[in-house]
Amino acid sequence: MAEVYIAGVGMTKFGRSERSLLNLMAEAARTALTHAGIYEFDAIYLGAMNPEEFVGDGCFAALFADYLGYAYVPSLRVETGTSSGAAAFFAAWTAVASGHYRRVLVVAGEKMTHLSTPRVAEILSRMIDPYERSYGATMPALAAMVTRAYMEEHGVGPKELALVAVKNHHNGTLNPYAHFQQEVSLEEVMESRMIADPLRLYHCCPISDGAAAALLTAEEQPVKVAGMGHGTDHPALRHRDSLTSFRATVAAAQRAYKMADKRPGDIQVAEVHDAFAPFEIISTEDLGFFPPGKGARALVKGRTALDGDLPINPSGGLKARGHPVGATGLAQIVEIVWQLKGEAEKRQVEARVGLSHSIGGLASNNWVTILERV
Amino acid sequence: MAEVYIAGVGMTKFGRSERSLLNLMAEAARTALTHAGIYEFDAIYLGAMNPEEFVGDGCFAALFADYLGYAYVPSLRVETGTSSGAAAFFAAWTAVASGHYRRVLVVAGEKMTHLSTPRVAEILSRMIDPYERSYGATMPALAAMVTRAYMEEHGVGPKELALVAVKNHHNGTLNPYAHFQQEVSLEEVMESRMIADPLRLYHCCPISDGAAAALLTAEEQPVKVAGMGHGTDHPALRHRDSLTSFRATVAAAQRAYKMADKRPGDIQVAEVHDAFAPFEIISTEDLGFFPPGKGARALVKGRTALDGDLPINPSGGLKARGHPVGATGLAQIVEIVWQLKGEAEKRQVEARVGLSHSIGGLASNNWVTILERV
Repeated sequence: MAEVYIAGVGMTKFGRSERSLLNLMAEAARTALTHAGIYEFDAIYLGAMNPEEFVGDGCFAALFADYLGYAYVPSLRVETGTSSGAAAFFAAWTAVASGHYRRVLVVAGEKMTHLSTPRVAEILSRMIDPYERSYGATMPALAAMVTRAYMEEHGVGPKELALVAVKNHHNGTLNPYAHFQQEVSLEEVMESRMIADPLRLYHCCPISDGAAAALLTAEEQPVKVAGMGHGTDHPALRHRDSLTSFRATVAAAQRAYKMADKRPGDIQVAEVHDAFAPFEIISTEDLGFFPPGKGARALVKGRTALDGDLPINPSGGLKARGHPVGATGLAQIVEIVWQLKGEAEKRQVEARVGLSHSIGGLASNNWVTILERV
Repeated sequence: MAEVYIAGVGMTKFGRSERSLLNLMAEAARTALTHAGIYEFDAIYLGAMNPEEFVGDGCFAALFADYLGYAYVPSLRVETGTSSGAAAFFAAWTAVASGHYRRVLVVAGEKMTHLSTPRVAEILSRMIDPYERSYGATMPALAAMVTRAYMEEHGVGPKELALVAVKNHHNGTLNPYAHFQQEVSLEEVMESRMIADPLRLYHCCPISDGAAAALLTAEEQPVKVAGMGHGTDHPALRHRDSLTSFRATVAAAQRAYKMADKRPGDIQVAEVHDAFAPFEIISTEDLGFFPPGKGARALVKGRTALDGDLPINPSGGLKARGHPVGATGLAQIVEIVWQLKGEAEKRQVEARVGLSHSIGGLASNNWVTILERV
C-alpha cells in the first residue's frame, strides 16, 4: 500500500452546543483545512453514527458537502456505531492508498444534547444485540456487567476504577477542547450517583456535541498512518468468549501492529475508548500495554498519567473531552496528531509513535490506528 | 490501481417479505459466496440507507456479520442514501485495490414494506434539503417538478413517460427476482392514480424489501471493475443549474468513463435508476447515451428495449424489480454481472461492457459503475 499522510487536523470544542451538526462539522473541517493549508481535495468521507435520528437529516454526506461550500466534491458516509469516526478515517485511508484519490477530507461529528437523555439512550441502545435489548438492557447496564466481571476476576476495587476518572478529568483541565475542564476528586467520583451498579455517574462519559476533521493526502507530511486494524465480535455479550477482554480490540490491535511493524512497547502515547472508566483499564490490557489484570495497577502507579511512561488519554478521553459518538474515533486521531507534532500545548507529551483505539457498540466493532512522525 | 474482480453475485427476490432484513441480506450473501465458490474473505462492506429507522437496529454491520456466521470478520457500513449499495461497492473496491484486503464481501439491503407508507415517506424525506422539506416537499413532489420541467423543455408528453413503465414491466416478467412480474399496458399506466401531477402510480417504483451481494477479489475472474465515478450536487433543487439534467450523474459518469477508458458508445447494456419513470429518460441523456432531450425518442424507437441496440434496465429497473433503497445500487451491479457472464436467462442480452447508475437522494449523491468481461 502507498503511504498516506495527515496534512492537517481540527476539531470543535466538545460539550453542549446550540449550533447545528452541520455547523459543528464545518468548523472542524475548516480548521483542518487551514491547519493543512490545503483547500482542494478529491472527496469527503463522513463519520456519523445516526444523523437521521439525532438531528432528523439523511443522505447527510451530500448535505454536509453542500453546507461546507464543496457541493460538487464526492461525499459518502461510513458507520460502525460509536466508532464511526475511525471507520470513516479507515475508508478514506484505503481510498488514498489505492491511488483512486490523492486527498480526502475526513469529517466526523454528532449532535446529541438537544435530545432528552431517555431519547439518547434509546438511540444508543439500537447498538445492543436485539435479544438482549428486548430484556431492557441498556449500554450502562451491560457495561456494569462487564465491570463486575472484571472486578471479580482481577480483584480490582472501586477506588481503581475511580482513578480513571480522576486522571482523565485532570487531563481535561489542560485541554481547551474538552467538555469538562475541571478536576474531580476520588471522593467525588466514588460518591457520585449510582447509574448501574457498580458504575457511578463519574465513571460514565457525558452526552456531548462536537466534530473533528483530518485531511489525508498521498503527499509527504510530518505525520503518516503507520497501520490500522479493524476488529469485530458478537454483539451479544452472552455469546462472547470473555467479558473482561474485548476480542474486537485484540483483533484490531494485532492487525494494526502487524501492518505498522510495531509492538505495544513502541507506543508512546495513546487515546483509548473510556466511555465507561473500566473500559480504559480493560483496553490498555487488550492493546498489549499491560498484562491481563494488570491495567489497574499501572494506572495506580501513575504509569498512564501525563507524566507516566505511557500517557493514556492526554486529551481527557471520552470521560472528560466528551463523547459526541460519531466524532470520537476521529477526535482521538486528531489528539494523537497534535501530540506527535508537538502542538498539544499544556498536555504535550514526548512521542514519535501514537495509537488511538475506538469502540463501536458494546465493543462489537472496534478500530486501532497507529500514527507515526516521519 | 490494482485490478479488482467480481467473483460472485447474488440477490433475493425483491418484493414484500415477512423475513427480517438480516435474513434477506444473509440469503443474498450466501448466494454470492456459493456463486463464487469462495467462503473466506477479509471484510464485509454493508450498504443500507437507514436500518435504524426502517428496522430499529444500529451498528448494523457487526450485527449482520454475526448473523451470517462471520462475527470475527471486520464489517463496516457505507451510506449515501438511496445509492448506498453502490457506495458500499465503491468503498470495498478501493479497499481491495489498495491491497489492504484481498477479498471483500459487499452486501446491501433494506426492509421497508412492514411500515406504513406515510412512515416510509417520512424516512425517505430525510434526504430532501431541510428547507425544501420544511415546506412539505416529498420525493414524488420534487420528482414531479423535475418531470414537468423536462416535459416543457423538450416537448415530451405523458405517453413517452408511460413507455418507460411499459418497457420495464415487460422486462420484469422475464426476471424471477423482480417485485412485479406482469406486463402493464400504456393505458393502465396513463390511467393509474395520480401521485404528484404529472407522475402517476405506475410512473413510480414500489416500496420493496430485498438484498443483493457481491464478492470482490484481487484474484483474476471473468468480470472486472473497469471504472467507477461518484458525483454530487446541491441537495436543494432551487440551487441547481438545471432541473432537467442531474449534475451528480454527469460528474459520476465522466469520472467512470475516464477511469475505464470508455465512451458512452462502448456501453452495451445499462441498469439505470428509474425511481420515477422520467428519471430513466433523463439519466440515459446524462450518461451520454443520447443527446439532451433525445432520450424519449430513443425509448419510443425501441432502442432501449431488450432487443434494442442499448438495452436499458433488462432487470425491470427500480420500476419492476423494485426498490429496497439501500439494496438497489448493488442489485443493479448484480444484474450487469449476470448479463456479462451470460447468466441472465430469459432477459439475456449480448454485452461485454455494462454500466450501472444509482441515484442517492434526489440526485444529490450518484454513482456510475462500469463492468467489463475480461
